[in-house]
Amino acid sequence: MGKELLEIPPDTPVYTGSVTDIGCHIKLLLYYNGSELIKKTDLTVEQLKDFKFHKGYTYWISIVGLNDTEKVQEIGKIFELHDLTVEDIVNVHERPKIEDFDDYLFVVVKELLFDRESLKIDFRHIPMVLKDNIFITFSEEWTGIFDFLLKRLEKSKSRLRQRKSDYLCFSAIDVVIDKYFKIFEEIGEVVEDMEDRVLKEPDETLVEQVHYLKRELIFVRRNIWPLREIINDIIKADYTFIYEPTKVYFRDAYDHTIQIIDTLESFRDILSGLLDVYLSSLSNKMNEIMKTLSIIGTIFIPLTFIAGNYGMNFRYMPELYWHYGYFAVLISYVVIASGLIIFFKKRKWF
Amino acid sequence: MGKELLEIPPDTPVYTGSVTDIGCHIKLLLYYNGSELIKKTDLTVEQLKDFKFHKGYTYWISIVGLNDTEKVQEIGKIFELHDLTVEDIVNVHERPKIEDFDDYLFVVVKELLFDRESLKIDFRHIPMVLKDNIFITFSEEWTGIFDFLLKRLEKSKSRLRQRKSDYLCFSAIDVVIDKYFKIFEEIGEVVEDMEDRVLKEPDETLVEQVHYLKRELIFVRRNIWPLREIINDIIKADYTFIYEPTKVYFRDAYDHTIQIIDTLESFRDILSGLLDVYLSSLSNKMNEIMKTLSIIGTIFIPLTFIAGNYGMNFRYMPELYWHYGYFAVLISYVVIASGLIIFFKKRKWF
Amino acid sequence: MGKELLEIPPDTPVYTGSVTDIGCHIKLLLYYNGSELIKKTDLTVEQLKDFKFHKGYTYWISIVGLNDTEKVQEIGKIFELHDLTVEDIVNVHERPKIEDFDDYLFVVVKELLFDRESLKIDFRHIPMVLKDNIFITFSEEWTGIFDFLLKRLEKSKSRLRQRKSDYLCFSAIDVVIDKYFKIFEEIGEVVEDMEDRVLKEPDETLVEQVHYLKRELIFVRRNIWPLREIINDIIKADYTFIYEPTKVYFRDAYDHTIQIIDTLESFRDILSGLLDVYLSSLSNKMNEIMKTLSIIGTIFIPLTFIAGNYGMNFRYMPELYWHYGYFAVLISYVVIASGLIIFFKKRKWF
Amino acid sequence: MGKELLEIPPDTPVYTGSVTDIGCHIKLLLYYNGSELIKKTDLTVEQLKDFKFHKGYTYWISIVGLNDTEKVQEIGKIFELHDLTVEDIVNVHERPKIEDFDDYLFVVVKELLFDRESLKIDFRHIPMVLKDNIFITFSEEWTGIFDFLLKRLEKSKSRLRQRKSDYLCFSAIDVVIDKYFKIFEEIGEVVEDMEDRVLKEPDETLVEQVHYLKRELIFVRRNIWPLREIINDIIKADYTFIYEPTKVYFRDAYDHTIQIIDTLESFRDILSGLLDVYLSSLSNKMNEIMKTLSIIGTIFIPLTFIAGNYGMNFRYMPELYWHYGYFAVLISYVVIASGLIIFFKKRKWF
Amino acid sequence: MGKELLEIPPDTPVYTGSVTDIGCHIKLLLYYNGSELIKKTDLTVEQLKDFKFHKGYTYWISIVGLNDTEKVQEIGKIFELHDLTVEDIVNVHERPKIEDFDDYLFVVVKELLFDRESLKIDFRHIPMVLKDNIFITFSEEWTGIFDFLLKRLEKSKSRLRQRKSDYLCFSAIDVVIDKYFKIFEEIGEVVEDMEDRVLKEPDETLVEQVHYLKRELIFVRRNIWPLREIINDIIKADYTFIYEPTKVYFRDAYDHTIQIIDTLESFRDILSGLLDVYLSSLSNKMNEIMKTLSIIGTIFIPLTFIAGNYGMNFRYMPELYWHYGYFAVLISYVVIASGLIIFFKKRKWF
Repeated sequence: MGKELLEIPPDTPVYTGSVTDIGCHIKLLLYYNGSELIKKTDLTVEQLKDFKFHKGYTYWISIVGLNDTEKVQEIGKIFELHDLTVEDIVNVHERPKIEDFDDYLFVVVKELLFDRESLKIDFRHIPMVLKDNIFITFSEEWTGIFDFLLKRLEKSKSRLRQRKSDYLCFSAIDVVIDKYFKIFEEIGEVVEDMEDRVLKEPDETLVEQVHYLKRELIFVRRNIWPLREIINDIIKADYTFIYEPTKVYFRDAYDHTIQIIDTLESFRDILSGLLDVYLSSLSNKMNEIMKTLSIIGTIFIPLTFIAGNYGMNFRYMPELYWHYGYFAVLISYVVIASGLIIFFKKRKWF
Repeated sequence: MGKELLEIPPDTPVYTGSVTDIGCHIKLLLYYNGSELIKKTDLTVEQLKDFKFHKGYTYWISIVGLNDTEKVQEIGKIFELHDLTVEDIVNVHERPKIEDFDDYLFVVVKELLFDRESLKIDFRHIPMVLKDNIFITFSEEWTGIFDFLLKRLEKSKSRLRQRKSDYLCFSAIDVVIDKYFKIFEEIGEVVEDMEDRVLKEPDETLVEQVHYLKRELIFVRRNIWPLREIINDIIKADYTFIYEPTKVYFRDAYDHTIQIIDTLESFRDILSGLLDVYLSSLSNKMNEIMKTLSIIGTIFIPLTFIAGNYGMNFRYMPELYWHYGYFAVLISYVVIASGLIIFFKKRKWF
Repeated sequence: MGKELLEIPPDTPVYTGSVTDIGCHIKLLLYYNGSELIKKTDLTVEQLKDFKFHKGYTYWISIVGLNDTEKVQEIGKIFELHDLTVEDIVNVHERPKIEDFDDYLFVVVKELLFDRESLKIDFRHIPMVLKDNIFITFSEEWTGIFDFLLKRLEKSKSRLRQRKSDYLCFSAIDVVIDKYFKIFEEIGEVVEDMEDRVLKEPDETLVEQVHYLKRELIFVRRNIWPLREIINDIIKADYTFIYEPTKVYFRDAYDHTIQIIDTLESFRDILSGLLDVYLSSLSNKMNEIMKTLSIIGTIFIPLTFIAGNYGMNFRYMPELYWHYGYFAVLISYVVIASGLIIFFKKRKWF
Repeated sequence: MGKELLEIPPDTPVYTGSVTDIGCHIKLLLYYNGSELIKKTDLTVEQLKDFKFHKGYTYWISIVGLNDTEKVQEIGKIFELHDLTVEDIVNVHERPKIEDFDDYLFVVVKELLFDRESLKIDFRHIPMVLKDNIFITFSEEWTGIFDFLLKRLEKSKSRLRQRKSDYLCFSAIDVVIDKYFKIFEEIGEVVEDMEDRVLKEPDETLVEQVHYLKRELIFVRRNIWPLREIINDIIKADYTFIYEPTKVYFRDAYDHTIQIIDTLESFRDILSGLLDVYLSSLSNKMNEIMKTLSIIGTIFIPLTFIAGNYGMNFRYMPELYWHYGYFAVLISYVVIASGLIIFFKKRKWF
Repeated sequence: MGKELLEIPPDTPVYTGSVTDIGCHIKLLLYYNGSELIKKTDLTVEQLKDFKFHKGYTYWISIVGLNDTEKVQEIGKIFELHDLTVEDIVNVHERPKIEDFDDYLFVVVKELLFDRESLKIDFRHIPMVLKDNIFITFSEEWTGIFDFLLKRLEKSKSRLRQRKSDYLCFSAIDVVIDKYFKIFEEIGEVVEDMEDRVLKEPDETLVEQVHYLKRELIFVRRNIWPLREIINDIIKADYTFIYEPTKVYFRDAYDHTIQIIDTLESFRDILSGLLDVYLSSLSNKMNEIMKTLSIIGTIFIPLTFIAGNYGMNFRYMPELYWHYGYFAVLISYVVIASGLIIFFKKRKWF
């Protein structure tokens, strides 16, 4: 990323994502006060340019595919977006943020993706533009995140149809937050599973996995904290296109982001604790092993020495000729072994 | 939780708790300035709807059982609660919070439950609505948390009977906080017991228990911090239905929440310290064991070698034929062992 | 504590301390502008009730013994203290705090006690009431904390006699803070002693003591932080009975509390560091022991094997019959041992 | 540095950098509203002094080489810079900072340099002065950091040519930030490489490298945090020479600094975690080794003892004469070894 | 310290330092606008009392030796210092602080001393009083800290001579800060040296030294943080005797204190990291040692057992009589040893 940034002037938008085999699909939905819902899919940029936007209606324009930066620039021109906004739309490495350009509000959020097998957490860049009665969402590829929103819009009695574009904007953000909950639940199960394993059957791959998940959560954190600030900003600042009745919903969304952050922090705490438990669990094992070795070793070492002693071939070793010599040695075995066992018992070694 | 949230529009209340085999029990208490207390139990929603609320009286409506969301919605309609409030009432995963809807105050607190055997800490969702002279409490199931409040109400001379609904609200929150104290005292005993064990007889199950309790306290923390903010909010903000004379009591409650947080933090500190002590205690044990093994090992290894040497069957080994050979070896045993013992003594190995 | 709190309504004061075999001793001191000091000891509550307080004088009432809650309640009534104040006076678990009840100021501080033998740190609850020209101190038992204050009051030229009750209040708090200094000095010596021991002769009881002291300091912290806030409050807020000229003294006291907190934090830092040093010191010892064992072990193991080999009783072992066999073995001993020693030397094992 | 500072009065500028074999190279670029670009390289200080600056034009003066402090002082006099500014220009140890001297704005940023082989991170001091239509950059040596900016300036249609000196200032800072991104990407690769190695082939040099990189990042941190504050200051404060339309670009730059800080913090988190993983990985290895030793050791020790026992040369050892004695011993070998293996299996040692 | 504080009323100044064999040396310097510098050394308190101070001149009074508290009290009276100020002047344990007493400004800073051999960091108490055109510095003993300031004053053209007493005050604080830089540079070298040693030749004394230096830095921290606050206060607050043009210099000094704090924090970070590196380095060593022991041990143990087996004296051991028995055993040695070596190689033990 850095390299390109250094060689390309900041006034040229550059697509920094990985999805490049997708065109630029434009879908337009319009409705007014709960009575009518018109869908237009696969519009061309020209059709969008020629489209007449009316005051009473609410418009939702969904653009999928950001790699064709020229088309995004043209769309930007239609809705009079600032050059910087267009650049931020196609730069998928941009952090979640909110920016108020007097005649529109620019919001960037991130969809969360989680692969339970590899523990890989990924993000999808979702820039949004709110402009009076027009709401525009951009996404890199089809992830189905807004499908459910669409279904709700289709119900003519839904709260969504009865409200303005700012409620649509809230719902879009809410859907993204709900996705966080869903994925955090999955992560929670993974973490619980790790806890079970660390206490029952700790092995080295677990450390790797704990480290990896901790690392991934660091990146999640970088995307969730600004989300909280965004929503807080919407509640506190006086943005032109966010009306008072919608703010109570954002307040609810704010509580949810805090809940998510709390959950994230507890994951981090638990995972950090896991490594300690793992190490203490290893130490325990080690201790037990060493103890067994020590006990058996220290008991037999003196006995073996005695045996070795009477295995010597000196011509003059009086004991060897004593009739009960062997039995005396056997008895000394028992005495020494018992003595050591008693000594270990006293020190609570077993 | 996440899954349902994603498929159900935010405008439908969903009960997310686990207590589902309970109906919706409504109890109504009314009284005015210390003179009269009327109890009506097992009211139906219809009876509640038809009930006439008078200005001079203070009403406490206690609703137990939240899984019948339709009834809760109807109750919400009777008291003109916002849709979001109704949703938050039945969503037991909601964090403690306070929300001011001009014509009522919505407070969510959490009852703490602790099982000393399994160290499991649990929460019960307790949403409350304060509306001028009406105070409504919701709970998932009968936990008896408000029994004591009831007893106090029955005494006609109690402070409770002489004050308004805001004092009732304070008392309800106070009862919840007192429950925290009670449970924290139990946890304190458990922690102290763990401290004793880690120093006297550390075993592996202890690590598991410490980790588990630490983990549970992380979740307790997530519920106590917002509680503090709620009470602080009540003191600082100018909520319509909280009158000045009650605020001094809330200030007291605020001190208690800080005391609880302090206690919680010290539990966390102590438990974190315990793991270190445990590890150092293990290391100590290990050290002692290794030392014993090393001393016995290093003393006998050279002796055994000497014995082994003279056990060889070479035809020409002059020492073997020397009359005092065996005694010389015995003396060499003593010399070597003494030398090593002195060496170890000097190095302070025992 | 929790249990009682749950069963007793918040409007009944409960003594929660441990000193129960003491009555309620009332002492009254009065003086005006440096000219006169009158002492009245062992007053009864009735005598106190009938006592006439004059404007020009400054009164210091010292009450020792809080377990007779009824008497405390009566005293509360004499000086028109709020119910909550009376409850807080007898509840020794209350945190240090300041509360402004328009017609009086209620301050709670804690006297620190330290037993150097057992490392036990204890607290004594000291509530104070400042009411224009009347200053009341409460204490659970005779600890002599205010003896020195009394001596200073007896000197007619002392600054104390020339100033109002707010300076008396400052002096009382100052005396408590000075006690902290004194005890922190003792703790500092204990900590230094622990540092010496951990580096010179680490043993397991040290870990226990470090853990115990750390734990005690956690509790000290919970009482010192609010003290700082109290004094800061006195400086910043405009309390009716604290006059401007006294504030400069409180500013000095504030600096002292910060100094105490700094000291406390450095104790905590040092103690935390000690455990690490202890562990590394243990590891060092272990390393040295293992090294010795390894060196002796690995040198003698091959030699013993060779000896064992030629101790076998096979009929056909050509070496045994070779005249210089034994000497060859002796030489091989030297060669192998030297080789291993050189190997260890190279690896810097000793 | 300290020594010189102590002996030289603060009113004498001292060059504290290491690049001393470079003169003082002055380059001047001027242009107005996108029409004209004039470059003058290798100007002398005298030429600069005599140069006439016109209102309509934007001037960029680039000064390379700071060790000739007298020349820098003279340049300072030409543009009426405060003595402290001149001192800060030549003191390369100065932190990044912004200072508003009514008639000019003084900004210090740091260029980041990274040597992947040695993991050494270095800084180059880049002071900047913004004075209405004049923008001055200083640098210790030629690092090519502004080359790209120059190229952009040469394009007459670039945004840079159409805007004022404040946009030039933004672009200069932006180029510095982009350099951070580029280098952080490299560091990111190094960190990822370390992660791979710690899990696959941990060796001691890795610890050294992790420690070294952590250490270097501590210093990076000290230079990035103030950078963020600088940009925030530019956005918030009302500096005379920063115009409103440029602030939106600084807002973007601010987001980038936060992204950089986030990345830095995650590097630190990951590196800290790496050491733990390394230690646990070592412990694992140790455990495996000890286990093998213990198992082999404890199995053979008793067997060797038995063998030793029957190697004794007592005249009266009845077993030796029993015909099946040897076979009984062989069987006892098998029984004992199997017993121990079963014991170890049960304890899950392998 | 505590003990004395408890027995001596707060209205008596007590010298708490260790330098007691020094009198009270008064030096007075006066000058006006760069034209004249008069020095008067070894003044008596009486001479100082009778001295006439003129408006136009700037006076610097340097007092060395604080153990004669009576003289300090008299000096306090001459300049009308508050009792608390006098107490703080002689109490060397006072934290750095700034206090505004309407008619003068009281500043306490600390000179840093460092003994590289013992790693001991010490402080010297430097109280200062700024009173319109009079600036008074106090010090416990001659440390030469202000010598350089004196030299600069002697140059009639120095900035110092052309400015007022507030610039003199700044210069005095600046000199103290420069001393911090100098000493931090030395500490930096010590830390770097420790880093080298921990990686190359870790020994136990290093842990002791790291711990000791960390401990000393804790105390340094307690003196530097308030210093930063003091300078910030000077910049922000509107102190009567600090004029606007001097504030820009204090802003520079503020940047320096932040730089010092940053450096201090990085020392702490590095030192904390060092212990981890040390432990991992120890573990590494241990691992290597154990590995060698294990390999040699586990290879020879089975071989020795075989030798022992055939050393038994059973009458009926068929192998002993087999002609190639001995050679078979020798071959079995090679097979077993090779097998184990291959096993260890596979597990990457060497």
